[in-house]
Amino acid sequence: MMIRAAIVGYGNLGKGVEEILKLNSDFELKAIFSRRDISRVKINKGVNFLPLSQAEKFSQEIDIMFLCGGSATDLPVQGPELARLFNTVDSFDNHNNIPKYFEKINEVSIKSKTTALISTGWDPGLFSLARVLFESVLPQGISNTFWGNGVSQGHSDALRRIPGVVDARQYTIPEADALKVAREGGGDKLTIRQKHKRVCYVVPEFGADQQAITKAIVTMPDYFEPYDTTVNFISAEDLKENHSALPHGGFVIHSLKLENGSRQTAEFSLKLDSNPLFTAGVMVACGRAVNRMAKKGVFGALTIFDLTVGDLANFDAGSLRKNYL
Amino acid sequence: MMIRAAIVGYGNLGKGVEEILKLNSDFELKAIFSRRDISRVKINKGVNFLPLSQAEKFSQEIDIMFLCGGSATDLPVQGPELARLFNTVDSFDNHNNIPKYFEKINEVSIKSKTTALISTGWDPGLFSLARVLFESVLPQGISNTFWGNGVSQGHSDALRRIPGVVDARQYTIPEADALKVAREGGGDKLTIRQKHKRVCYVVPEFGADQQAITKAIVTMPDYFEPYDTTVNFISAEDLKENHSALPHGGFVIHSLKLENGSRQTAEFSLKLDSNPLFTAGVMVACGRAVNRMAKKGVFGALTIFDLTVGDLANFDAGSLRKNYL
Repeated sequence: MMIRAAIVGYGNLGKGVEEILKLNSDFELKAIFSRRDISRVKINKGVNFLPLSQAEKFSQEIDIMFLCGGSATDLPVQGPELARLFNTVDSFDNHNNIPKYFEKINEVSIKSKTTALISTGWDPGLFSLARVLFESVLPQGISNTFWGNGVSQGHSDALRRIPGVVDARQYTIPEADALKVAREGGGDKLTIRQKHKRVCYVVPEFGADQQAITKAIVTMPDYFEPYDTTVNFISAEDLKENHSALPHGGFVIHSLKLENGSRQTAEFSLKLDSNPLFTAGVMVACGRAVNRMAKKGVFGALTIFDLTVGDLANFDAGSLRKNYL
Repeated sequence: MMIRAAIVGYGNLGKGVEEILKLNSDFELKAIFSRRDISRVKINKGVNFLPLSQAEKFSQEIDIMFLCGGSATDLPVQGPELARLFNTVDSFDNHNNIPKYFEKINEVSIKSKTTALISTGWDPGLFSLARVLFESVLPQGISNTFWGNGVSQGHSDALRRIPGVVDARQYTIPEADALKVAREGGGDKLTIRQKHKRVCYVVPEFGADQQAITKAIVTMPDYFEPYDTTVNFISAEDLKENHSALPHGGFVIHSLKLENGSRQTAEFSLKLDSNPLFTAGVMVACGRAVNRMAKKGVFGALTIFDLTVGDLANFDAGSLRKNYL
């Protein structure tokens, strides 16, 4: 039997889930829900596109809801609301608020006998998995996470809030020297500045004071001040032409030096032309696992730490043992 | 409460597990069992070293038995025998025989209400996990596994069986060009010869025909014939001095090109000064998970696909969510 999926939110991530579901033979897309004016959205043929307010009517026809809204304002509301009616998967990525978000969703989904996987994707998500896995098999080692090369949405947003900036894109770039140091086990000595640099492409308003904008950027606490930051002013056309993709990636590097002097290093890395399409891929695989857990009666909030890799896979246990061990 | 562990077999792997248990604060080592003449084994102070024949007496005092024997002759006998009495973890790595071995262990452990994790380590083990994880989140992608740089025990053994060879060590070396091709998504076109080369260090008998040995090596089907193989003749002293470590490692690279042309690549790699110590690290983390599953009443044979990463970790779920997501 096919897993009946629906998507909530039709931005980059929602479109990504729609795309990835086509690669997974065990899923069928039943509906896409959105708060937008439906008559204005360009949708793919044959897709059931509905206002979010109608979702409740479909609670018996959908096995998994992929929540593709943002972490700032969408998910804190939609997560608990939809977990009351559906099994859900989301990519809530506000790291500091994860424990509180988990508790809230857990309360709702335990009461409603649903299964809700929160905070999946790649970070939080597969990178979290790698950090725990590496610390478990190489205990007391030194762990480092590097991000990039890629577009940081949060940092791009911060640039856009500066007076005189029309639009902007920020690339996070891990330093090759720092990667080398981490791979050789010296990651504990790396400073924030040594690990990453930040490169900004900024479209200024006509006549804006570029020196003032540059100063506002490189002195911005937390976001840019702790890093070596380069600011490039470009035209709106150049930004659209050369900086509209959303590549990303990164590295989790974990190294343990044993008493006898021997060094063991594990590394997990991603190189993604499309950040949202990869997050979508992880969400769909997790949706498969959540569906299995719901059918087994495992209710409540879950994270990627609670799933087996076997449950992520579109293969039965016997095939996995035969073909993948 | 501490997890009470025991080790069966005191070769490189058994000694590795003894070492790694010290890094894990939730384990205590209760005993090491061996078939060797105990009076002749150099053991660490305070360790309870016992003949394997006495293991049965300890069935109530040990939570996890780490089976550290070889896959050729030890585990096929010891695995089923010990799974009758103990929860076990082993690194059975004869890939073709895994399904049959699984069935045999599963039958015994279901009947005895024990939990037995088979075939863990890094390959089979973490590399298997990476292959399934990557195929699940990037379905229909192209997967490649590379091994090395490292010593292949199987290939070293094959060299030692050639007439005129006193001792030998074989290094498997992944080709840098092939790694590059796989990372760019062209891994499906790589031939066996393009992916790895083999470098042999051979100690010949006095007066042996080195040309004949070289020919026997490079023409050996499956082991060496499909590869570019280099043979170096060295002295026994040189072998001992420069080739007694057991480094290894490798790469699992998975790449998916989507219809819109965008490319997503995931990579997991290991660089290990000590192959057996890393296998030991994975076994111990898996032992923690097996102990938890046994306490929950999950009996039978398992593989790494059946474990959650949360269960491998020496942290509770709340700490994992707070500190690692």
